[in-house]
Amino acid sequence: MDFNAHFKATLDTLKDEGNYRIFAEVERQCGSFPKVKHFNGDDVSEVTVWCSNDYLGMGHHPDVVDAMVQTVQNCGAGAGGTRNISGNNNLHRLLEEELADLHGKEAATLFTSGYVSNWAALSMLGAKIPNAVILSDEGNHASMIEGIRHSRADKVIWKHNDWRDLDRKLKAVGDRPKIVAFESVYSMDGDICPMREIVEVAEAHGALTYLDEVHAVGMYGPRGGGISEERGLAHRIDLIEGTLGKAFGVVGGYITGTAAMCDFVRSFASGFIFTTALPPAVAAAATASIRHLKQSDVERQAQRDRVAKLRARLDARGIPHMASDSHIIPVMIGDPVKCKMLSDILMQDWGVYVQPINYPTVPKGTERLRITPGPLHSDADIDHLVEALASLWKQCAIAHAVA
Amino acid sequence: MDFNAHFKATLDTLKDEGNYRIFAEVERQCGSFPKVKHFNGDDVSEVTVWCSNDYLGMGHHPDVVDAMVQTVQNCGAGAGGTRNISGNNNLHRLLEEELADLHGKEAATLFTSGYVSNWAALSMLGAKIPNAVILSDEGNHASMIEGIRHSRADKVIWKHNDWRDLDRKLKAVGDRPKIVAFESVYSMDGDICPMREIVEVAEAHGALTYLDEVHAVGMYGPRGGGISEERGLAHRIDLIEGTLGKAFGVVGGYITGTAAMCDFVRSFASGFIFTTALPPAVAAAATASIRHLKQSDVERQAQRDRVAKLRARLDARGIPHMASDSHIIPVMIGDPVKCKMLSDILMQDWGVYVQPINYPTVPKGTERLRITPGPLHSDADIDHLVEALASLWKQCAIAHAVA
Ligand SMILES: Cc1ncc(COP(=O)(O)O)c(C=O)c1O
Ligand SMILES: Cc1ncc(COP(=O)(O)O)c(C=O)c1O
Repeated sequence: MDFNAHFKATLDTLKDEGNYRIFAEVERQCGSFPKVKHFNGDDVSEVTVWCSNDYLGMGHHPDVVDAMVQTVQNCGAGAGGTRNISGNNNLHRLLEEELADLHGKEAATLFTSGYVSNWAALSMLGAKIPNAVILSDEGNHASMIEGIRHSRADKVIWKHNDWRDLDRKLKAVGDRPKIVAFESVYSMDGDICPMREIVEVAEAHGALTYLDEVHAVGMYGPRGGGISEERGLAHRIDLIEGTLGKAFGVVGGYITGTAAMCDFVRSFASGFIFTTALPPAVAAAATASIRHLKQSDVERQAQRDRVAKLRARLDARGIPHMASDSHIIPVMIGDPVKCKMLSDILMQDWGVYVQPINYPTVPKGTERLRITPGPLHSDADIDHLVEALASLWKQCAIAHAVA
Repeated sequence: MDFNAHFKATLDTLKDEGNYRIFAEVERQCGSFPKVKHFNGDDVSEVTVWCSNDYLGMGHHPDVVDAMVQTVQNCGAGAGGTRNISGNNNLHRLLEEELADLHGKEAATLFTSGYVSNWAALSMLGAKIPNAVILSDEGNHASMIEGIRHSRADKVIWKHNDWRDLDRKLKAVGDRPKIVAFESVYSMDGDICPMREIVEVAEAHGALTYLDEVHAVGMYGPRGGGISEERGLAHRIDLIEGTLGKAFGVVGGYITGTAAMCDFVRSFASGFIFTTALPPAVAAAATASIRHLKQSDVERQAQRDRVAKLRARLDARGIPHMASDSHIIPVMIGDPVKCKMLSDILMQDWGVYVQPINYPTVPKGTERLRITPGPLHSDADIDHLVEALASLWKQCAIAHAVA
């Protein structure tokens, strides 16, 4: 077989469909975010990022930057080993304690990313709870889907956010160990799950609840404990998973739950055991970020204000966007080529960076611009973005397209 | 089902077998490595690490520390998004170029860890090359095994390092796309594969070669390109995978190969697409480390000298250790409880940290102390370690046990 020819041919198909991805190259800079440098070959320009997942700008917070710098200076760049083999720093333990406290749980286990935490925890739980069935919301993230698939446990998919459907399906499963896996904020539509109903249904059937709060930690709840904290439900959820790479502004992932569960995952999950630990400096930076957001609401308030303002301005100009109670504003386009074209024009002509979101991140036909306003976007930034979109809407006459 | 009771009971079994893991808590410090702080409850003592995978101490190299510190100060803590959605920094591209150059390949694709690079690349290649068969060395790392398993491609296991067996099995597979997956340095035994023979056999059958150089990059070859560079074989291997977390002293993983292959993996591998990018500061630190080891042989020479010296001293005292041409010195114990006990005594009484390597990292019955001498271990450190082991060997009378 000519492998390289196969790779090229497959990539060509992707290009023909308009789904080939070109990564915008940017450099974020402390102090000037959300303005960033955009590299286009030899050309460097300043653009405003409207699609960052560092939702609150914490990656540039002085406490976070200082913690990271000091720890690199003290402890060096990397951990030097897996958690088990010489790579376990006391800063990892402190971070795990901080995370357990954030969610009001007995313990936490740290992973190299949110992706790995979902994949490793779900694949291990599904495999090592005998006869388990995993009931997975149909909108769940790739990392959960792959983890469930890897576990080889039976899987039942329930309709997105539909707790009645979940109830029916739990009933149908009968007397087997059941795991209900779902998210709080779904990142591409920005919708929030009916958490209380889901938890009650799961409780009624004795199912273990597995909640991904990746897009909610740091963002919701008085201490940034996510939607489960905001709604007073954290203590009723068995496992809360999160990331250190979005609102906390660093990198890494984790699960929290009972001491026995975290120890179980720590002891058996391949993706936890057989990999170099996160750098101590990353752990220190994440700890600083979590601590700050536990006692400061300023960033969350400012962010909410920016979101409301942008939504109102989009409405005023008749630019369709999906409604939700979250911080994520999807502007639907419904075609990969158009979506990429609009994004390119925004970048080139308006200095506005909104990445086109195409397949496989969203289903084909639901391509979109996904906008995430942050506390550092100014009124002028919002005006400029809305102006740009309105002008494009007029030009392209896609104004009243999909919504 | 009482989930927590199940978790506890399973952990109890692990404890009964002697396979329950307790992580030593250490803090590495720039300037004093391989001496580190060891935390034991409130007790803090100084110990010498003999089991670090920061093989050359690069995690503390001034160039690496400076690059990381400066980039955190300039760009902040995290990347702020996935590579596709606002997280693609120009420092990621520079690192990928550096890695491609290191292995003499057209391109490289970066992952959050070596584990993820193996898992994501193999699972995707196995799934997206129609009708593929993966021929996997029986000693391959968990990350490769899980990747192959996840791909659902047919898998054939060949005897460890046995190219004749590989040849027979390739023949038996017949006319299908074949991927041969193997490692250069096997990290638990320290043995090095017969790379030329494997490559020739694979070539004869038109198989794609997938080589894990995780324990060899930075360490072997005039520029640290691994065993494939040392033996002049890199250009004959299709895909070389490596880590930034061991000899390079930071964290992260990668693959290198043709531009089309890297683009294919970049475009389709779930574990690459759906996860926050490595912090730019990590990319900058890794780039500095690779650049340094491309033009400096001092660390590799010093390390080789330390390894030879320790082996000679162990021989002189009759302490059995597995022979190999690599930098890894396994001292076989063959029992998990004894292995942990020896490690505990070394730590408590001798200030020597060598983690016990038990199941599942090695097969049951082959438990060991795995020693990794580095360029920063002094003659006095070596004398002290050998003294400690000799004293234990006498005490425990396990002197001529397994070898
Ligand atoms: C819902 C969800 N879970 C998990 C992840 C993975 O987290 P991380 O970026 O830390 O790997 C993401 C996005 O990246 C996500 O959107
Ligand atoms: C052979 C091998 N491949 C891959 C890995 C994973 O690399 P990383 O630690 O960067 O995840 C390891 C060890 O951790 C390994 O020993």
